[in-house]
Amino acid sequence: MARIVLGPNQYGKAEVRLVRVDRGSDRHTIADLNITTQLRGDFTACHTEGDNGHVVPTDTQKNTVYAFARDGVGAPEDFLLRLARHFTSAHAWVTGAHLSAEQYSWQRLGDHSFARAGRETRTASVEVDGESVVVTAGLKDCTVLKSTDSEFHGFPRDRYTTLPETSDRILATNVTAAWTYGRDGLDYDATYAGVRDLLLETFAAHHSLALQQTIFAMGEAVLERYDEIESVNLACPNKHHFLVDLEPFGLDNPGEVFFAADRPYGLIQATVLREHG
Amino acid sequence: MARIVLGPNQYGKAEVRLVRVDRGSDRHTIADLNITTQLRGDFTACHTEGDNGHVVPTDTQKNTVYAFARDGVGAPEDFLLRLARHFTSAHAWVTGAHLSAEQYSWQRLGDHSFARAGRETRTASVEVDGESVVVTAGLKDCTVLKSTDSEFHGFPRDRYTTLPETSDRILATNVTAAWTYGRDGLDYDATYAGVRDLLLETFAAHHSLALQQTIFAMGEAVLERYDEIESVNLACPNKHHFLVDLEPFGLDNPGEVFFAADRPYGLIQATVLREHG
Amino acid sequence: MARIVLGPNQYGKAEVRLVRVDRGSDRHTIADLNITTQLRGDFTACHTEGDNGHVVPTDTQKNTVYAFARDGVGAPEDFLLRLARHFTSAHAWVTGAHLSAEQYSWQRLGDHSFARAGRETRTASVEVDGESVVVTAGLKDCTVLKSTDSEFHGFPRDRYTTLPETSDRILATNVTAAWTYGRDGLDYDATYAGVRDLLLETFAAHHSLALQQTIFAMGEAVLERYDEIESVNLACPNKHHFLVDLEPFGLDNPGEVFFAADRPYGLIQATVLREHG
Amino acid sequence: MARIVLGPNQYGKAEVRLVRVDRGSDRHTIADLNITTQLRGDFTACHTEGDNGHVVPTDTQKNTVYAFARDGVGAPEDFLLRLARHFTSAHAWVTGAHLSAEQYSWQRLGDHSFARAGRETRTASVEVDGESVVVTAGLKDCTVLKSTDSEFHGFPRDRYTTLPETSDRILATNVTAAWTYGRDGLDYDATYAGVRDLLLETFAAHHSLALQQTIFAMGEAVLERYDEIESVNLACPNKHHFLVDLEPFGLDNPGEVFFAADRPYGLIQATVLREHG
Repeated sequence: MARIVLGPNQYGKAEVRLVRVDRGSDRHTIADLNITTQLRGDFTACHTEGDNGHVVPTDTQKNTVYAFARDGVGAPEDFLLRLARHFTSAHAWVTGAHLSAEQYSWQRLGDHSFARAGRETRTASVEVDGESVVVTAGLKDCTVLKSTDSEFHGFPRDRYTTLPETSDRILATNVTAAWTYGRDGLDYDATYAGVRDLLLETFAAHHSLALQQTIFAMGEAVLERYDEIESVNLACPNKHHFLVDLEPFGLDNPGEVFFAADRPYGLIQATVLREHG
Repeated sequence: MARIVLGPNQYGKAEVRLVRVDRGSDRHTIADLNITTQLRGDFTACHTEGDNGHVVPTDTQKNTVYAFARDGVGAPEDFLLRLARHFTSAHAWVTGAHLSAEQYSWQRLGDHSFARAGRETRTASVEVDGESVVVTAGLKDCTVLKSTDSEFHGFPRDRYTTLPETSDRILATNVTAAWTYGRDGLDYDATYAGVRDLLLETFAAHHSLALQQTIFAMGEAVLERYDEIESVNLACPNKHHFLVDLEPFGLDNPGEVFFAADRPYGLIQATVLREHG
Repeated sequence: MARIVLGPNQYGKAEVRLVRVDRGSDRHTIADLNITTQLRGDFTACHTEGDNGHVVPTDTQKNTVYAFARDGVGAPEDFLLRLARHFTSAHAWVTGAHLSAEQYSWQRLGDHSFARAGRETRTASVEVDGESVVVTAGLKDCTVLKSTDSEFHGFPRDRYTTLPETSDRILATNVTAAWTYGRDGLDYDATYAGVRDLLLETFAAHHSLALQQTIFAMGEAVLERYDEIESVNLACPNKHHFLVDLEPFGLDNPGEVFFAADRPYGLIQATVLREHG
Repeated sequence: MARIVLGPNQYGKAEVRLVRVDRGSDRHTIADLNITTQLRGDFTACHTEGDNGHVVPTDTQKNTVYAFARDGVGAPEDFLLRLARHFTSAHAWVTGAHLSAEQYSWQRLGDHSFARAGRETRTASVEVDGESVVVTAGLKDCTVLKSTDSEFHGFPRDRYTTLPETSDRILATNVTAAWTYGRDGLDYDATYAGVRDLLLETFAAHHSLALQQTIFAMGEAVLERYDEIESVNLACPNKHHFLVDLEPFGLDNPGEVFFAADRPYGLIQATVLREHG
């Protein structure tokens, strides 16, 4: 008969809120992050016996984040890599880790004053398994909209189809993107800024026949320009903007007045990658 | 014996999400608003008898918002004023209204492409009671931070006081401000932009001995520059950033590594106004 | 010319999360609250000069909450009254206070195990101004629904009205209620439980011609049964459930399949009170 | 050189809010769900060419959900299975689907009146890939707390460890659980209720040496009692309750007054499964 056993597991401290001020000159800089650590390895005795001999406390993981920040943060990917190397080398039974971060951007108001920028949140994650290290960068909560240059037609119709075809609609989405680097030693900050701008430019310039097509074009543009990126994953809600019917009020509505709906929304997810071989 | 009666009441449609595209030229503009209508007047029979003869449906109120948007939106204050005049003139028993709006800002990516800017949300409200009209403008979710130039000391100490005095701390807050106009016919968009910038500049330039003092300085600056504004109401959480104690790890922390706390937070509220006579 | 002065103001600590375990017997009880303190009085010098001599730190206010909890919490209204008396008597310049609390309910799983109940959140507030004390109790996030016994017709129609009349609809709302006590020394826990049940019973039993009528009936029922309550304020969204048109799929829909919409929603607010004299 | 190609992808309608009233007798019942459909198959031409010939519109998917609800909903797993079979059989190029649902529970107030219960949200998902069908059930937002019977000690200490050992602490978490069924034709409603109760009972009865141990015990209990379940995945935040230091106020605190923290929190994730020999 089948035994009941522990399967995949991980644990750590979630959402460690770190603000790091660099006071090296009168012109301060700040880094504002939300960091989650998850350790992997041999934690079976804790689960089955309550033996904590292998359990690096999540409190210690949090302390480590703050202590490491004393030397500066730099790019979130580099900071997570430092932490991952520490956790997996400090304790023999910690054989892997999944560390992730959100970074919030601030706009400078003065030498030591800032306003939260808020356009999008930068994300980063590092996944270590023995010798393997995977670095992923990304963004989320990046809301974009095209007021034209978006069509949707030619789709199959069945018994449940009522949607009319359209050759001009609003296309709006909230981009979540994550791209995986194929090599290390990169300038993660510069690459992030470049990829983000390229995603926005591609969205803006693309004439869309489907949100799927726009997403693919965005991922393809990134892979074409950035050799160091292996794949791009995109998850984009189709935030529906419905043209309001103003006819009952004796008014036309030539694509001008819209109701922005909350739910339901389309949800489109795709990975664009390099096919080797 | 006291009779049980209907007291103050109002009703309407909340959070009407309106996106208005102006396609007057190839370079589109968009207005993105969330509008709430609340009508006041004689609605007693509805409450006590279920007689809906006076109840302009909230659905009709929503339709009216969309129909009025057909002619363009302009400043949210002007749009709310148009709606308020309509509701209070269309039906004899509607003697007042409280209309409010949030407006979200978008940054241009191209002729007809935009990214949600996200720094702060603009707010507007119009309150009508018979002949009286009060127009209030404001902003919310405007997060700002000073990494120095903030002190807090000289406060009274009692049995429950453990807070040490400090001559250098992080000051961070999320500004909610609302200012009331003393006359009409204003360029609400230009004034909004000016007041917002002035609030941010004052926050950045102020050497703070207390968040209360900074708030007062922000309101005072607005009243000094803008004759047309009668009062400014500010509500600001003190978003605590606690210096992390790194001593247990053999490290100093000269104002560099902070824990950004969620709750509890200080909450400071004040109105700054003109004293007439 | 008008001078610029400080108007109404208050400050304190918001959202102090207090969990109090009573271990008096093997059968533990817990109180789980979120408390906000706001002090009023003479704080002008702080706002205008940065002089903190009158500013009881919000940190001290937080400490006071925890220290007072050592003696037990009891009904949230009683706990807030104890705190209010302390703050206004400890410092001559603190002449008033507005204290409020949310209390979360837990369902017992065992002697010392609990599951968060989650049906509604209890609220309480105490407002002190010199000798005057006003105690208000309430609830929020109490979501209720009637699948029939709700009509809406007889409303006025104008150019913007498209809503059809209905003699059977779903009525759903999320009740926020607050009632003010006219005297003190009450058993606040028992009264809370009684009022909450009465609000739900009245909602369930009422044949509704308008949400306004249902709200009024709920408030009226409370005032009829509870002499000690002076007024009831109710704010209720009309959470629209739209009957889905299944005709395009060759199906009827006799009041069975609904789309639950998020926004916009109706918003109905009313106070029911005793008319003295 | 590597070609850029489309990798894994899926799309559909997210968060279709369905309320289904059963009026078969005077005593109504309601089902309240939030359904997300994601189709998988050959959608390459849409991504690369904007050719929508294979793209069943997300609007059609939504319509299908509502149309299928006309015949009744039943257990969410059964409803998702019906939908999955439809989507994968109706169109040759749709070879898989991932459908998921949240179901909200309501407590009866009367024959046709209900209050949202709110204790936890039931979840269900069905994943189809060709002939393979995987049914997963679960719950989320189930907040539980033990006021004693929880210890944490014996953990390794390194340079960054400051946490003291404890033999009595509050253990609180917000359980997210998902269990996978190994065969079909089950009574999903009855099994759900049984598993939920068993998870709560195990949490309540367990003397915890680590949250990991408690989680494992919960999963193990489910697998021991339910043959039809193959594995249980649990994700549980450790919602820290810190004992407040009342010494500065001359008070002791024998495990009675706690601060409930928001962030950071421990995050413990584990799968418990059957090891087939």
